[in-house]
Amino acid sequence: MLVIGERINGMFKDVRKAIQTKDKAIVQDLAKRQLASGANVLDVNVGPASADPVSAMKWLVETIYEAVDAPLAIDSPKPPVVEAGVKACKRPPIINSTDGSPDKMAALIPLAAEYKAGLIGLCMDEKGIPSTVDARLEVGMKILAACVEAGIEPQNVHLDPVILPVKFSQPQFAVSFETLRQLKTLSDPSPQLVVGLSNASQGCIDRHIVNRITLVMGIAGGLNEAIMDPFDTELMHAMITAELLMNKQIYCDSYIDAYMKSMGAGK
Amino acid sequence: MLVIGERINGMFKDVRKAIQTKDKAIVQDLAKRQLASGANVLDVNVGPASADPVSAMKWLVETIYEAVDAPLAIDSPKPPVVEAGVKACKRPPIINSTDGSPDKMAALIPLAAEYKAGLIGLCMDEKGIPSTVDARLEVGMKILAACVEAGIEPQNVHLDPVILPVKFSQPQFAVSFETLRQLKTLSDPSPQLVVGLSNASQGCIDRHIVNRITLVMGIAGGLNEAIMDPFDTELMHAMITAELLMNKQIYCDSYIDAYMKSMGAGK
Repeated sequence: MLVIGERINGMFKDVRKAIQTKDKAIVQDLAKRQLASGANVLDVNVGPASADPVSAMKWLVETIYEAVDAPLAIDSPKPPVVEAGVKACKRPPIINSTDGSPDKMAALIPLAAEYKAGLIGLCMDEKGIPSTVDARLEVGMKILAACVEAGIEPQNVHLDPVILPVKFSQPQFAVSFETLRQLKTLSDPSPQLVVGLSNASQGCIDRHIVNRITLVMGIAGGLNEAIMDPFDTELMHAMITAELLMNKQIYCDSYIDAYMKSMGAGK
Repeated sequence: MLVIGERINGMFKDVRKAIQTKDKAIVQDLAKRQLASGANVLDVNVGPASADPVSAMKWLVETIYEAVDAPLAIDSPKPPVVEAGVKACKRPPIINSTDGSPDKMAALIPLAAEYKAGLIGLCMDEKGIPSTVDARLEVGMKILAACVEAGIEPQNVHLDPVILPVKFSQPQFAVSFETLRQLKTLSDPSPQLVVGLSNASQGCIDRHIVNRITLVMGIAGGLNEAIMDPFDTELMHAMITAELLMNKQIYCDSYIDAYMKSMGAGK
């Protein structure tokens, strides 16, 4: 499982303040602690923190690299912000994200190809989030085909079936899970399957359990990546156990500790 | 989700002692507390507690009915013990269980038909537990067809893909989950899909998390019943949340409490 740590995001107060006051220590501490908690990749999102998101993204990426050498996911709805982040990266990042709209694909697919970056593709487009499995698959296929056409390997394409908050869009969960299962079969080798996990629980009183159960059900359907909170220990343990049951790691009595140690946890 | 409470089983020390000393209070307390914790059905299994399991089963069933009026699952590998239990029931129970072996089916299918009982059918037979999805499905189909032939409705047939302990048979989980998904399509209306959940975690240090994650992954694949421990609160909460995400109940902020209240929990 690829854990893309979600915490360096200007939507969180501590990160917003760090961006606004140029406080490197907050960002670097979050980077180190997420990696020590089992994150493999660090998401980087300026959020609403800055009037100059291009500069803020560049500062965030450079600040993180001063402290750790980890793969990043450059996360912004604005292609110029994404581009600034990608250019500041020392190694190919994941671009988070395009969708199936022509403008987004035209801006981000060539960028991903040029920088050998991974690209997250949301199964939605300029018309919105399709309500059926087939329509989401169609968008996923369109993105995947355009990526392959541009020279991006399918394994570098990360398709996201889109998960909406259960509180507001409850019936769509079944659509998302089934889309996930079918996205896996779109190519061989298959694209990576990713979700933005915390979306699931927006507005819920107990967000942790909703995130945890969503992740486990996703893994049962073939999910192999998530943008998520690595500080949520129970979430990490649920993920590790689900992967065990999917036969992705060997059982030992201390399989959770063994996994965390293999991730450098506690360093 | 149909929760079949597993606790009245002679494998547990308290129940064994109750059977041996004819201590009704222990059994009746377990019956009441399981129902109050969210069980819909009570499994009844003499286990290794008695040299006269036929009498012990009859005593258990009568003892439970003195305290509660709930559906029971009559659980024994020995058809005469099952028969004694079924005959002592005030209302049609679930018979737990047949497998695909001719002797078992010949003994238990007519019994289930005669008493309008449900019947759990394990996807294994006299040759053992098949290692492939297709072979398990074949056994499931054989049991289902024989039941329908005998006049049992498909909705009264409860097929179990068989889950082995992850500690000892790790790769078989994927087979069990995929069997589960496909069993659902064997008939329309489909059979019920059940597992003996605690099998999954036998020999594991932390049984609770393995049971919990197994249940959630099962629900993602269509599981709608489990023989499980209703006293495991986190397990119940995981189940309720998984069902929420499968759109089986409506979201409200207190959806877990609402579900438990609807089950009479706390009474």
